[in-house]
Amino acid sequence: MATTLQPSDAAISATLAAIRFDAAGLVPAIAQAEDTGEVLMMAWMNGDAVAETLRTGRACYWSRSRGALWRKGESSGQSQHVVDLRLDCDGDTLLLLVRQKGVACHTGRRSCFYLAPRGDAVAEIAEVLVPPEELYGGKG
Amino acid sequence: MATTLQPSDAAISATLAAIRFDAAGLVPAIAQAEDTGEVLMMAWMNGDAVAETLRTGRACYWSRSRGALWRKGESSGQSQHVVDLRLDCDGDTLLLLVRQKGVACHTGRRSCFYLAPRGDAVAEIAEVLVPPEELYGGKG
Repeated sequence: MATTLQPSDAAISATLAAIRFDAAGLVPAIAQAEDTGEVLMMAWMNGDAVAETLRTGRACYWSRSRGALWRKGESSGQSQHVVDLRLDCDGDTLLLLVRQKGVACHTGRRSCFYLAPRGDAVAEIAEVLVPPEELYGGKG
Repeated sequence: MATTLQPSDAAISATLAAIRFDAAGLVPAIAQAEDTGEVLMMAWMNGDAVAETLRTGRACYWSRSRGALWRKGESSGQSQHVVDLRLDCDGDTLLLLVRQKGVACHTGRRSCFYLAPRGDAVAEIAEVLVPPEELYGGKG
């Protein structure tokens, strides 16, 4: 069992300083299940979302559609406990290792990456584990 | 051993139609090692890069810095054989499952995600496997 990420205030400041946010002040953040290695989703963070994620150990993104902090699981219950946060070589992408409670995708699938070319079309290759109506709608 | 992705022309068209490219005509693409599950890198693709990747089975990105197609490994030899390509639920992010030849990162590390908060700073948590000067420089 991996431990919880509990960075010091200095480490949080150093992390924020190392991130190259884009012109909109955002950075893409990939969430990967720390147990299975499955890539669950990709969303965006601003500086406040990164700081909150590091402080609380729970994934907090920036919802571009709502223009607000998006505390993953706040409405759906499908939260992400953050085990580690990594930056890539040029600091413009984050990788979160998370313990996903339930499913990551608002469609009720474990991962958002469930569409792939098959035959002559794009097919759904993963099953719905939780009826979406139980997730209260939204990307939760 | 997973098979090679060999989508039909119709499937390639359907995939391109399902992708929601951003205002710059790009979509983020995450590369994950299909054997170990390690997330290797995140880069960008335009429509031509997606089509070439699907046609050839080798990862081709769009280099935003060079403004040109970036055939991964063309200069470094560290190419990516694409086993599958997945779209997420809203079609604005891609996940490539790849067989990485050598290392993905231009620093000579297996993965680009080798920086993480440790102690009071951001530390390098993965070792260099190939001296970067052997990779001919560039992110290739």
